[in-house]
Amino acid sequence: MATQTLNRDEISNLSFILNKPYDVSYEERPKPALNSPHDVIVAVNYTGICGSDVHYWHHGAIGHFVVKDPMVLGHESAGTIIEAGNAVTHLKPGDRVAIEPGYSCRRCGDCRAGKYNLCEGMVFAATPPHDGTLTGLWASPADFCYKLPESVSLQEGALIEPLAVAVHIVKQAVVQPGQSVVVMGAGPVGLLCAAVAKAYGASKVVSVDIVQSKLDFAKEFASTHTYLSQRISPEENAKAIKEHAGLPKGADAVIDASGAEPSIQTSLHTVRTGGTYVQGGMGKSDINFPIMAMCLKEVTARGSFRYGPGDYELAIELVASGKVDIKKLVTTVVPFSRAEEAFKKVKEGEVIKILIAGPNEKI
Amino acid sequence: MATQTLNRDEISNLSFILNKPYDVSYEERPKPALNSPHDVIVAVNYTGICGSDVHYWHHGAIGHFVVKDPMVLGHESAGTIIEAGNAVTHLKPGDRVAIEPGYSCRRCGDCRAGKYNLCEGMVFAATPPHDGTLTGLWASPADFCYKLPESVSLQEGALIEPLAVAVHIVKQAVVQPGQSVVVMGAGPVGLLCAAVAKAYGASKVVSVDIVQSKLDFAKEFASTHTYLSQRISPEENAKAIKEHAGLPKGADAVIDASGAEPSIQTSLHTVRTGGTYVQGGMGKSDINFPIMAMCLKEVTARGSFRYGPGDYELAIELVASGKVDIKKLVTTVVPFSRAEEAFKKVKEGEVIKILIAGPNEKI
Amino acid sequence: MATQTLNRDEISNLSFILNKPYDVSYEERPKPALNSPHDVIVAVNYTGICGSDVHYWHHGAIGHFVVKDPMVLGHESAGTIIEAGNAVTHLKPGDRVAIEPGYSCRRCGDCRAGKYNLCEGMVFAATPPHDGTLTGLWASPADFCYKLPESVSLQEGALIEPLAVAVHIVKQAVVQPGQSVVVMGAGPVGLLCAAVAKAYGASKVVSVDIVQSKLDFAKEFASTHTYLSQRISPEENAKAIKEHAGLPKGADAVIDASGAEPSIQTSLHTVRTGGTYVQGGMGKSDINFPIMAMCLKEVTARGSFRYGPGDYELAIELVASGKVDIKKLVTTVVPFSRAEEAFKKVKEGEVIKILIAGPNEKI
Amino acid sequence: MATQTLNRDEISNLSFILNKPYDVSYEERPKPALNSPHDVIVAVNYTGICGSDVHYWHHGAIGHFVVKDPMVLGHESAGTIIEAGNAVTHLKPGDRVAIEPGYSCRRCGDCRAGKYNLCEGMVFAATPPHDGTLTGLWASPADFCYKLPESVSLQEGALIEPLAVAVHIVKQAVVQPGQSVVVMGAGPVGLLCAAVAKAYGASKVVSVDIVQSKLDFAKEFASTHTYLSQRISPEENAKAIKEHAGLPKGADAVIDASGAEPSIQTSLHTVRTGGTYVQGGMGKSDINFPIMAMCLKEVTARGSFRYGPGDYELAIELVASGKVDIKKLVTTVVPFSRAEEAFKKVKEGEVIKILIAGPNEKI
Repeated sequence: MATQTLNRDEISNLSFILNKPYDVSYEERPKPALNSPHDVIVAVNYTGICGSDVHYWHHGAIGHFVVKDPMVLGHESAGTIIEAGNAVTHLKPGDRVAIEPGYSCRRCGDCRAGKYNLCEGMVFAATPPHDGTLTGLWASPADFCYKLPESVSLQEGALIEPLAVAVHIVKQAVVQPGQSVVVMGAGPVGLLCAAVAKAYGASKVVSVDIVQSKLDFAKEFASTHTYLSQRISPEENAKAIKEHAGLPKGADAVIDASGAEPSIQTSLHTVRTGGTYVQGGMGKSDINFPIMAMCLKEVTARGSFRYGPGDYELAIELVASGKVDIKKLVTTVVPFSRAEEAFKKVKEGEVIKILIAGPNEKI
Repeated sequence: MATQTLNRDEISNLSFILNKPYDVSYEERPKPALNSPHDVIVAVNYTGICGSDVHYWHHGAIGHFVVKDPMVLGHESAGTIIEAGNAVTHLKPGDRVAIEPGYSCRRCGDCRAGKYNLCEGMVFAATPPHDGTLTGLWASPADFCYKLPESVSLQEGALIEPLAVAVHIVKQAVVQPGQSVVVMGAGPVGLLCAAVAKAYGASKVVSVDIVQSKLDFAKEFASTHTYLSQRISPEENAKAIKEHAGLPKGADAVIDASGAEPSIQTSLHTVRTGGTYVQGGMGKSDINFPIMAMCLKEVTARGSFRYGPGDYELAIELVASGKVDIKKLVTTVVPFSRAEEAFKKVKEGEVIKILIAGPNEKI
Repeated sequence: MATQTLNRDEISNLSFILNKPYDVSYEERPKPALNSPHDVIVAVNYTGICGSDVHYWHHGAIGHFVVKDPMVLGHESAGTIIEAGNAVTHLKPGDRVAIEPGYSCRRCGDCRAGKYNLCEGMVFAATPPHDGTLTGLWASPADFCYKLPESVSLQEGALIEPLAVAVHIVKQAVVQPGQSVVVMGAGPVGLLCAAVAKAYGASKVVSVDIVQSKLDFAKEFASTHTYLSQRISPEENAKAIKEHAGLPKGADAVIDASGAEPSIQTSLHTVRTGGTYVQGGMGKSDINFPIMAMCLKEVTARGSFRYGPGDYELAIELVASGKVDIKKLVTTVVPFSRAEEAFKKVKEGEVIKILIAGPNEKI
Repeated sequence: MATQTLNRDEISNLSFILNKPYDVSYEERPKPALNSPHDVIVAVNYTGICGSDVHYWHHGAIGHFVVKDPMVLGHESAGTIIEAGNAVTHLKPGDRVAIEPGYSCRRCGDCRAGKYNLCEGMVFAATPPHDGTLTGLWASPADFCYKLPESVSLQEGALIEPLAVAVHIVKQAVVQPGQSVVVMGAGPVGLLCAAVAKAYGASKVVSVDIVQSKLDFAKEFASTHTYLSQRISPEENAKAIKEHAGLPKGADAVIDASGAEPSIQTSLHTVRTGGTYVQGGMGKSDINFPIMAMCLKEVTARGSFRYGPGDYELAIELVASGKVDIKKLVTTVVPFSRAEEAFKKVKEGEVIKILIAGPNEKI
């Protein structure tokens, strides 16, 4: 899509819509207008698929978020600015941007205190009742769009969102240079956590999974060590991880990017006395948890939810500087007309990351 | 015990010894000598009883700490300096001190980094194989004995230890002035956590327990609100606590000082988004835990283990300044000869805190 | 001013205007309208005078902020809500509020990161070219108005602004319970810093000034110790402060609320090794500074600028809870017609704090 | 020096001694013995020269530290373990170590709180009255000797000390990935700060100096940008630095590694609002300082003094991992007999770093 053709009138706003579980459709939706002089309109170029998109597609709900009306899916996108409000100074038509797909109220205590990801008034893409970014045109407050440097492609730009998730998790883990970090799970977020931990200066980054091929990829992508989880107790798996990685006292930080109960249990037995464990992956609401390991080792445990101030900027910088080679995660790119097929591929685990081109994108 | 009679030769070193579960004896033990010019010898005046003492008395073990040889019980003590090594400058014979009953190796990474409570080489009173403080004379590195100001009595001094536990817990909870703090459990540590939270400037301090009389005491002692836990789900108890205390978004910090599974579950549902939960009480190793509440609310959860740098000093200051009226916790004081009876009273829940006078103390 | 008469049409918008240095006038200005559904209109009840107001009145400028066009003075105010936009949920007409007199852009990196006081786009009352609050009606985003609890009067409400300044300074100093804090200067901000430090649990709060009567007031108001600065070197004054307050190693935190060069120098010699010094008072741009004392003692030095997230809420809570008895600072209250006279009194140092009633306020 | 010949009896303890300014001698000193089972004896292999060594050599004093009796110089050393006390478990004869040349009392409040570099009882090499490491044999507590991995040479090991200084400075600056860091001064410590900042993930590292050849080296060594200071005002130099490095809002962190008054002034004008400035270099005790820039921009300023917990470990890891190519700093290595000549070369600025081989080292 050449920037000279970025004419609002010529652009399709075809959207990929979830009507109910497994029932999707492609519809031309009305084009959005600028609601405020601080807004921009973005033509979406590429969109990645996240586990939560697939979960909505399959179940029509995540927890108490229930899809009642037809909803556009997708929230991992990059695009090109078509129109910018009068008050926007850092973006102009033609600029390529990574889209942060949620914007907050800016007025509550959390927003004002710099924790906008915790804002109760958050409007988040593809979270009912809000439409997502698998569409032609996306309207957004300009400060939630981040200009991509020349060296970062629009396809890479679409993966800034999951990378920002990983950046936020690693910040919650307070990783310091020279530390050891164990990452449970080698799916997209786990892989990105490993890469970000390394960019933060971790000297040992251990990826743990139950699938050897994922670990092979992790080793090539970022990890210094990998460990294939065995069908043994969490204590035994933890012991084996520590031995394998040469961490007799345990890891400085453990990140669970799997959401799986045994992984979380293993996390608590793997982290060192005084270390940090971060829960980055979604899973069952309630699990059996080694609470006394947390208490007696004086572990700091933290949740991580989406991303906040500075996370997108750092994610872009990590890609631009070559510290995270994010394009390696892209298994394939499909045209917009094959969006449903892309969802199937993700569900079946055939890809690490698949990108769906925007409806105006020729590929 | 007048300080002029603090003559080593005249002092008994009678000790209260656990031989095996429920089998105790009183024995005159050899008097300790100064091992280093940095050490002091303390004549113990008063000793409180902690739940862990009772647990050893009853079970002969806590987790992997097993009483194999006869062990002197007790670790909550205050005493009077009898002898001070040549290198000791801040203490002299006759000084009254609160005793910190564990000392660390000073050389490991944790010690050097200011986390001496996490030191693997810790020598801790009444934790096998180390003897405790229910004895006549106690030898200690001088920097683990803290001079009591005039305004703090030796009986109060014996309770500096549990107060330091509470100080450490409240520090782990990072309580700030104006915040709301919920404390699960109104036993001695829970009561002290409530008092310390208030001294830290918390504007609402809510004590939660299953025994109304404990809550009545809590209200009189320190808490601004109390809540009697009901036989309903943790979510429902949490909702009720928040309504009762006027905390629609939840509490800034929740401290579990009970170790009980339902309390811990309620804690996670009571803490606000972005808040802090600290596990201060011991209980079952593994429990059913609302992990997604921690993750999605981006809660910081922390363990708390004993006490570290500055905790004893602050505990003494809180008593000296009148901010924590610790003597209110003392239900009764018994002579050394009735130590076993004191253990029974604690086990049967007849007292909040009972003090045992030292073997040289006339009461 | 009874709330039932809070009728927009009946309310004067008489304003106290600085035309040029020493040239002021009273003018009826057009009544402001709601610019956004998130805004409120406040009838101003009381306004305090700050040193910066007096500086503009006298010099027509502070640094590069120059009064070019006539400007309404005043920024320390409390008032009553007259009108609230549709989107405002926490305030309604009749509510009494403390006014935070500056609002930020909400979109820049500093705003989003929770540092809105550093926002370059800040619109701040009585800072050219923005009008101040010595007026009848004030329009504001609703989230910069804070409802006063029943127990806090409107006169106290007008002093929430300088108290929030002090709260922010004490937060920058990271004061912890049991610590020692030295405050240089016993003017309004210095006095409030002393009171806030005490509310934060400081066990020693030492006020230092060159005027004995101010120190006498400080002692009565909040300080545990006072020291009258002598015409000796900063090192000697620091030595004397430490001796007088029983701080052989120096103070944990030193706050300069004076802006005076010798005070700042003394601050650096008074703070302990590893302690914190905060510059809270305005003064000369460049001074002779003991940089090696900062370096070799590894002191953390911080600036403090206005107030940020949570500061107003905490200031109100400190007054409501009785921890800061702010009404003691009010020397006198004058009607709006005597605003100029009030400025003269402040300039001549005749008062600690003088309040000017709003033009609709009968006193 | 082959490890098999590490026989105490065959090793010379020839020492390089400062008698008074410019008056040095080489003397065989008595061999040290183990004072404690926690100690080791190290045969010194290489020693670097620091500015403070040269200052003592030239002036016989630094501040109030005055050389009254003959003192062995040197404190940047690596060596080989000759003898280890019974309680030492992590080192054995033959191990190659970087020597941390000061050890603390382990008992004061600073030591216990993890700030041992601030300990008043510190015994520091070549700081009167304590002898330094330009000697054959050095006795030390074992925990202040750090085993070098295979991949780190003894010559590199001698430079771990200045690298640890830089690590500590960068920690004080709280550098985060993606940030911009300006380092004033491109001498050894400034160069190492630049390299460490980069290892911490800084995306822009700007070295500033008044000597172009030093900047050329800095660019090759670690910096992404360099700036040659001009004979203009600090404000103008700061403006030029920001323009040159593309930092319109200023740098996230500025480190002064020069100690020069104009550099410090420029630092305060270069740091962004809300940023951090660290004073890492020694210089005049008092300077003209832009205090209002610190105050109004709410800058955090910190001193940095030597190194503390974890700094040596991280310094070694940065060399072992190749993140800091420290051997590039070594201009030349001379035998022990030419120690005085080495001091002259440093004083005349002919070298970046010169190493002096130990008296038992054949080179």
